[in-house]
Amino acid sequence: MTPKGTNLTWHGANVTNEERIAAVGQTGCVVWLTGLSASGKSTIARRAEQLLLERGYMVYVLDGDNIRMGLNKDLGFSPADRTENIRRIGEVAKLFADACVVTITAFISPYREDRDKVRAIMPEGTFLETWVDASVEVCEGRDPKGLYKKARAGQIPEFTGVSAPYEEPLAPELVLKSGEMDVEACALALLAHLQAKGFLPPRG
Amino acid sequence: MTPKGTNLTWHGANVTNEERIAAVGQTGCVVWLTGLSASGKSTIARRAEQLLLERGYMVYVLDGDNIRMGLNKDLGFSPADRTENIRRIGEVAKLFADACVVTITAFISPYREDRDKVRAIMPEGTFLETWVDASVEVCEGRDPKGLYKKARAGQIPEFTGVSAPYEEPLAPELVLKSGEMDVEACALALLAHLQAKGFLPPRG
Repeated sequence: MTPKGTNLTWHGANVTNEERIAAVGQTGCVVWLTGLSASGKSTIARRAEQLLLERGYMVYVLDGDNIRMGLNKDLGFSPADRTENIRRIGEVAKLFADACVVTITAFISPYREDRDKVRAIMPEGTFLETWVDASVEVCEGRDPKGLYKKARAGQIPEFTGVSAPYEEPLAPELVLKSGEMDVEACALALLAHLQAKGFLPPRG
Repeated sequence: MTPKGTNLTWHGANVTNEERIAAVGQTGCVVWLTGLSASGKSTIARRAEQLLLERGYMVYVLDGDNIRMGLNKDLGFSPADRTENIRRIGEVAKLFADACVVTITAFISPYREDRDKVRAIMPEGTFLETWVDASVEVCEGRDPKGLYKKARAGQIPEFTGVSAPYEEPLAPELVLKSGEMDVEACALALLAHLQAKGFLPPRG
């Protein structure tokens, strides 16, 4: 083969955002679930993921299962590490949304400032702060991992809702009353919101 | 992208890997491009991305453009930071592959150990180490950003191929001779390899 190296043109041939949206058939977004431990964030996220895949949409969930032991395994629970945890998740969610994936994150993310910083890096209208709203009493009554019990016993310092604050969203795009609605109803409400906002163009 | 999930039946709370692959219609993988500065990694990655999107596949490129100013903006160029840079990129690429996206990374990633660590976290057979192989002479001859010139002048310390080592892949899944082949040929060779390995199932 004749070497062609000298004739190469190295201009960027980048896919535009519009081209990607047309190719994938959907616009990406970040559904940022925030709420207390045991409020139902991960369960709702996983059910919504299932429903969206079933309907032919690209979707991915970022939660403790795939973040804490991987990307953020170097981080602990100090205030600085918690902030860095949310920062990185926000950046990864942004990449997934840029790839035209409906990206659902499920982290307590108790601080407004941390959530607002993620909103600030996202393209306008693509960050959907979603408050998974169940009271401390309801969450503590569930306590599937016994974390509230340990927190009350002083075995977990700075536990959100017990010994550390949860800063409720002031103007969330969506509120899922997970203390009153079951998982299925919350997941369907999430899908309805996505559809209403144009993130789920018709399939088939 | 056409919906593929209409006949699926769902069980269990979480989507299994098999269910996701069936719904998306492709298996995820990581095409890990490695090579010298100006060897063509990003250009090949972007062209391959364009070709794959055109053909109906989910694909995303991770490169300096979307990583260095975002997720890894807290990292510099010390040995420890370079290693952490590659570690995080590997973890993010793993997430994208888990979402069934053909994920192409374009970073010099000069150290075997760093690349091998990424290989180690990926499911068997889904990490495709791809050597974008052009000589220092060829790359320095291109030098689109004037980086080699600066490195030779001592203005950039530890510049790969000049004052820092590049550890060539010992057993890469694919070699793209980007000093002899043009961008189009390299991108098409990459697609051919993906197809041969079953990562690009036929589209209807």
